[in-house]
Amino acid sequence: MDTGTAYGKKPGTYRKELAEVSAGTPMGELLRRYWHPIGMISSLDSTPRKVKILGEELIAFRDGSGKPGLVHPRCAHRGTTLYYGKVEERGIRCCYHGWLWDVQGHCLEQPCEADGGARSRGNVRQPWYPLEERYGLVFAYLGPPEKKPVLPRYDCLEELALGEFIEADDSSIGGGGPPLVPCNWLQHWENVVDPFHVPILHGSFSGAQFVAQMGAMPKVRFDVTPRGVKVESLRPAEGGKVHRRVTEVVMPTLRVVPNPRVAKYGKVESIGWVLPIDDTNFRIYVAGRVTEKGELGRFRSKMAGKFWWELSEEEHRQYPGDYEAQTGQGPITWHSDEHLSGSDGGVARLRRFLEQQLKIVADGGDPACVAFSEKDAYVRLEAGQRLEDAADRAA
Amino acid sequence: MDTGTAYGKKPGTYRKELAEVSAGTPMGELLRRYWHPIGMISSLDSTPRKVKILGEELIAFRDGSGKPGLVHPRCAHRGTTLYYGKVEERGIRCCYHGWLWDVQGHCLEQPCEADGGARSRGNVRQPWYPLEERYGLVFAYLGPPEKKPVLPRYDCLEELALGEFIEADDSSIGGGGPPLVPCNWLQHWENVVDPFHVPILHGSFSGAQFVAQMGAMPKVRFDVTPRGVKVESLRPAEGGKVHRRVTEVVMPTLRVVPNPRVAKYGKVESIGWVLPIDDTNFRIYVAGRVTEKGELGRFRSKMAGKFWWELSEEEHRQYPGDYEAQTGQGPITWHSDEHLSGSDGGVARLRRFLEQQLKIVADGGDPACVAFSEKDAYVRLEAGQRLEDAADRAA
Amino acid sequence: MDTGTAYGKKPGTYRKELAEVSAGTPMGELLRRYWHPIGMISSLDSTPRKVKILGEELIAFRDGSGKPGLVHPRCAHRGTTLYYGKVEERGIRCCYHGWLWDVQGHCLEQPCEADGGARSRGNVRQPWYPLEERYGLVFAYLGPPEKKPVLPRYDCLEELALGEFIEADDSSIGGGGPPLVPCNWLQHWENVVDPFHVPILHGSFSGAQFVAQMGAMPKVRFDVTPRGVKVESLRPAEGGKVHRRVTEVVMPTLRVVPNPRVAKYGKVESIGWVLPIDDTNFRIYVAGRVTEKGELGRFRSKMAGKFWWELSEEEHRQYPGDYEAQTGQGPITWHSDEHLSGSDGGVARLRRFLEQQLKIVADGGDPACVAFSEKDAYVRLEAGQRLEDAADRAA
Repeated sequence: MDTGTAYGKKPGTYRKELAEVSAGTPMGELLRRYWHPIGMISSLDSTPRKVKILGEELIAFRDGSGKPGLVHPRCAHRGTTLYYGKVEERGIRCCYHGWLWDVQGHCLEQPCEADGGARSRGNVRQPWYPLEERYGLVFAYLGPPEKKPVLPRYDCLEELALGEFIEADDSSIGGGGPPLVPCNWLQHWENVVDPFHVPILHGSFSGAQFVAQMGAMPKVRFDVTPRGVKVESLRPAEGGKVHRRVTEVVMPTLRVVPNPRVAKYGKVESIGWVLPIDDTNFRIYVAGRVTEKGELGRFRSKMAGKFWWELSEEEHRQYPGDYEAQTGQGPITWHSDEHLSGSDGGVARLRRFLEQQLKIVADGGDPACVAFSEKDAYVRLEAGQRLEDAADRAA
Repeated sequence: MDTGTAYGKKPGTYRKELAEVSAGTPMGELLRRYWHPIGMISSLDSTPRKVKILGEELIAFRDGSGKPGLVHPRCAHRGTTLYYGKVEERGIRCCYHGWLWDVQGHCLEQPCEADGGARSRGNVRQPWYPLEERYGLVFAYLGPPEKKPVLPRYDCLEELALGEFIEADDSSIGGGGPPLVPCNWLQHWENVVDPFHVPILHGSFSGAQFVAQMGAMPKVRFDVTPRGVKVESLRPAEGGKVHRRVTEVVMPTLRVVPNPRVAKYGKVESIGWVLPIDDTNFRIYVAGRVTEKGELGRFRSKMAGKFWWELSEEEHRQYPGDYEAQTGQGPITWHSDEHLSGSDGGVARLRRFLEQQLKIVADGGDPACVAFSEKDAYVRLEAGQRLEDAADRAA
Repeated sequence: MDTGTAYGKKPGTYRKELAEVSAGTPMGELLRRYWHPIGMISSLDSTPRKVKILGEELIAFRDGSGKPGLVHPRCAHRGTTLYYGKVEERGIRCCYHGWLWDVQGHCLEQPCEADGGARSRGNVRQPWYPLEERYGLVFAYLGPPEKKPVLPRYDCLEELALGEFIEADDSSIGGGGPPLVPCNWLQHWENVVDPFHVPILHGSFSGAQFVAQMGAMPKVRFDVTPRGVKVESLRPAEGGKVHRRVTEVVMPTLRVVPNPRVAKYGKVESIGWVLPIDDTNFRIYVAGRVTEKGELGRFRSKMAGKFWWELSEEEHRQYPGDYEAQTGQGPITWHSDEHLSGSDGGVARLRRFLEQQLKIVADGGDPACVAFSEKDAYVRLEAGQRLEDAADRAA
C-alpha cells in the first residue's frame, strides 16, 4: 500500500504571532517600538505621497518650511483623502473644505467655519506620526509616544574613511527582485541568517550569482547577540587563507550583510532595513558607505547579466534567486509544514530570539536595541568579512 | 511627549443603517418604497441588458410589442442567465430549454415539456419588477407590491415654457466624474446639502470651476422640508443685489440643484436621481427642461477645459472635484472618524431626516414623498436661483 | 396588486454536498475514490508544471528515468515551491536548499546537512500521489491509499478496428468553449443527460450547430445503470428509419457522448473525463478511437464557422452554446431556485444516483465503478448511435 501520500494532509497554518504586523498584534506591537524607514529624504516634497507601513496607510509630504509630515490619510473632518490635499508653507490642506493641518496634526484653519475656526479648530487633531531624517532616509515611529526611543546610529554608517559618504536607496537591493516583494517580511529576514542556501540557490542552481568563492559550502557558526542573530561562515580562500564572513540581523528589521560579491574586506558596507508594508508585502531601504555616487546600485545582483525584471518566466525558472525562493514559500509560509534541520540553526535561533522579544513587550519591558539616550543608541556591528590565516583561526 | 499621534487609533466604522442598500437592510427597505430610474427609455430594446440596482442584478429588455421588462437574471427553470435569452414579441426566451417569460414573469411556453408545458407552465413564475416610463427614463419599483406608490410628477419637469421640452441623460451629470462612481451613494447626496465646499473644492482649490460668483463664501440657511432638506445660499451679486440659490435633496434620492454656472434665473431646470447600484457604487440619471437637444450635456463640468476622463492623474491632483472628494472618503466613509462642524448643518439635518424615515418604515408607516394618488404625487419644488434687492431680503 | 415580483425573494443557495469537491467534503471524498486525468502523457517532462485538481494545487513532472511524478507544491523542508525546482534523473530538487525528492516523495539528498542528510533524510517525506499512464493521458489517484482501485479499461478504447488507434486531447472538446470553463463541473455533467436542450440551444437558438437531424425534438428514455445514468433519444431519420442515440454518464466524471455530428454509427468513439479543478472551474480530457491524427480535434464544435474564442461578445449572444448556458448558471448554480420539469428526468436521476454514491462512501462502502481487479475494472459501455427500422423498435 502507498505510504506518505498527500491524502489526509492537514491544511497548513502559520504562526500569527510571528507573521502579522498590524497594530494590536504581538509582532505589530514589537515592531512599533522602533523607528522604520518610510522613504528617501529626496522623495518627500510638496506632492502628497501614499505610503503603507506595518499595515497602515498614510500620507507623507514635506511642508513649505521643509518639515516632513506623515499623517493619517483620511481628513479628520469628513474623511476625504489628503492624497488630493495641497501642501502649503505650514502644512497640508484638505481639498474638500480646506481644513489645514500641520505636520503634528494641529488644525490651523477651518475656512468654512466662523472666524476660520478660531474657536473650533482646537478640538480636533489629524492623527500623525513623528519623523526623523538620517542616512538619506526618513524614519517614522508608529509606537506608543511614551516609549519613543532615540533613532539609533550605526558605526558602519558613522565612521567614514576619507572620501567616503553615505548613499541611500529605496529599490530593495538585496531582495533579489523588484522594489515590492509580495510575501511576509520574515521570510526575507530569516534568509539572512541562512548561509547554506547560498551555495545551492545562488550557486549550483543558477550558476554562480556572486563570486566563485561563495559557491563553496561554508563552515558555519550561529550565535545569538544582544541585537539579534549573527552568522559566521568560513570558506577556504586563495593562498591557504580562510574567508571569514559575518552576517547579522539586528532588531527591528536590519539586514547587515557584507557585499556577497566580496568587493572589499573589512567592516560591513551597508545596512538594509526590511520594511513590512503589511503581512504579505515588504520592501528594503538601504544606506551604505560609498566613494562614488551610484555605487550602492551596483550591489544589486543580476542573473545571466540581466536585472530581475528583464528576465522571462522561463529565465526565472532557470535562474531562481532570493525572490523566487521567498515568494515561493507563499504570501505567508506555513510553519506547520516545515521540517527544520541542523542547517536551519540560524532560523531556529532567530525565531526563539523573536519569541523572547515578544514576551518582553507583553511583560511591559523594552525590547532589544531600544535606547532612550544618544549614547545607548550607538550600535556597534560585528558584520563584515576578512581574509585570515588558517593558523589565526585555529588559535 | 508627542500627543495626538495615530498610535492606538481605533479602526474606523460606518453606520450600516445609513449606508447599506440591499434588500432586508433598513435603508434598503426605505429606498424600496420608491420608484428608481434604471435606464433611458431609448436604451431598452430587444437586446437583454444587465442592470444592477440596490444591490440586485437584473435583466432589462423591451419586448416586441413595446413593453419594457425587468426580470431576475437567472431563468426560474435551471438558472441560466437571461442575458443570453432572445427577446420575442411576447417576452424573453431562455437559451437553454426555451422557456418563454412575459414582462410580468408569466411562463408562456415550455417547448421541451409535453404540450409545450400547457399544464406545467402555470406553476412557475420568473421573478420580475414593475416598470413605468416618464421624462425619458424608465423607473422600476423594487418594493413590497402592496405598498407600490404612484410614480411622482415634479413641477419643474411638468410646467414647460413655450419651446421647452424634457431631455434625459444617463451619464451621471453632476457626479464630477465618469458615469459609474465607486463609492456609497450617500456621500454624493450629502454633498448636495453642503454648500460650503463649493468655494473651496470648486473655487480656491481648482480655480473657479463654475462662475466667479460661486467662489464667494455664502451665507447659508438649512431647513428640513416635508420632502428632505433644503439649503438657501446668499451671495453678493452685481449692482448691490443678492444672489439667492436654493438647493434641495428630495426623497428618495433626488438631487435638485440649480445649474452652478448660473445660466438662468428661476425655477430649477433639472432633477438628478442618484441611483445606488450597490453599497459602494452609484450613478446619476438626469431629466431637465431644455430648449435645444444636447443642452443637458453642456451642464457637465470641466476642469481646465477637459472632461474628467481626459485628465491625467497629475491633473486630477491639481484639479480635484466632487468625484475626488467623494470617492476620496473611501468606498463607504467612516462615520466614526468624522468631526462635523457648524458648516456641516445640512449633512447633520439630512442624517436626522433619514433616521426618521427609517423609523417610519420600521414602524409600518409610509415615508416622505410616498403617495398613492396622482394628486398627492405631484411634487412642488423650491429649488432655483434668483437675483433680489438686498432690501427685499432684509424685510 | 402585482404578484410574483422579486421582492422578498430569498437569496439562492446551492447543495454543498453535490457541488464542493475539496478534500473532506462529501463529493470530494467520493471523487477521491477514483483515478482522474491530470494531463496528457506528452505534456509531462522535466519542466515542473502546476496542476490543480479537486481543489488541490500540485506539481507534476517526469524524472530523468521517465517516471511521472505528482507532488505537493511546497517543499517539505521550508515550503518553497517546487515550481522552481530542477528535475533530475532520480526526482525533483528544491531550488532553496537542494533537497531532492523522488516521485514517491522519498528524500534522497539534503546537501546542506552533514553527510548530505544520510541520517536525517529518512525522517521526512514530500507528500505525493500515485500516477498511471493510459490512453495518452496521465491519471492520478488522490484518495485513501488502502482504497486505491485498479485504473479501469473501457471497451470503446480497447477494442479497435483495423487502422484505428487512440488519440488524446486536453483542450476541453465537448465543453463548447475554451479549455478552462469557469463553473462547477456538475453543471456540465448534468448537461450530458439533458437531451432536450439540444434542439433548443443547439438548434432553434443558434441555428443547427450539429447535423440537421439533431434539431428534431427527440423521444427520450432515461435509465439508471450500474455505472451512472443513460439517455436514449429516438429521432426520425431518412427512409422511415429511426435514429437511436445512447448517451451515458459514468462514474466518476465520464461523459460518454456519441459525436453529435453523427459522423458514423456504432459504438461511441470517445470518452471525456470532466476534471473538477476546484468548486468553480473544470476542464475536459478526451481519449478516442481515430483513424488519422488530429481527427479528435475536428469533433470540436463551431458556431457560424468560428471557434468559440474567435467570436465577439455580440456573436456569443447571437450563438450561445454549452459554455454560455452552463457558465450562465453562475459559478455554482442555485439549486434552491430551480424548477425541474419532466424533461429534466436525467438530471433528477443523476442527482439521486450521486446521493446514493455519497451514502455508500459515508457508510464505508465502495461506490459504483470502483474495482480492485483488472477483470472487474473492464467497463462495457452502451453509448453509441445507430439507424433502426421503426419496426425493430416497436418490437
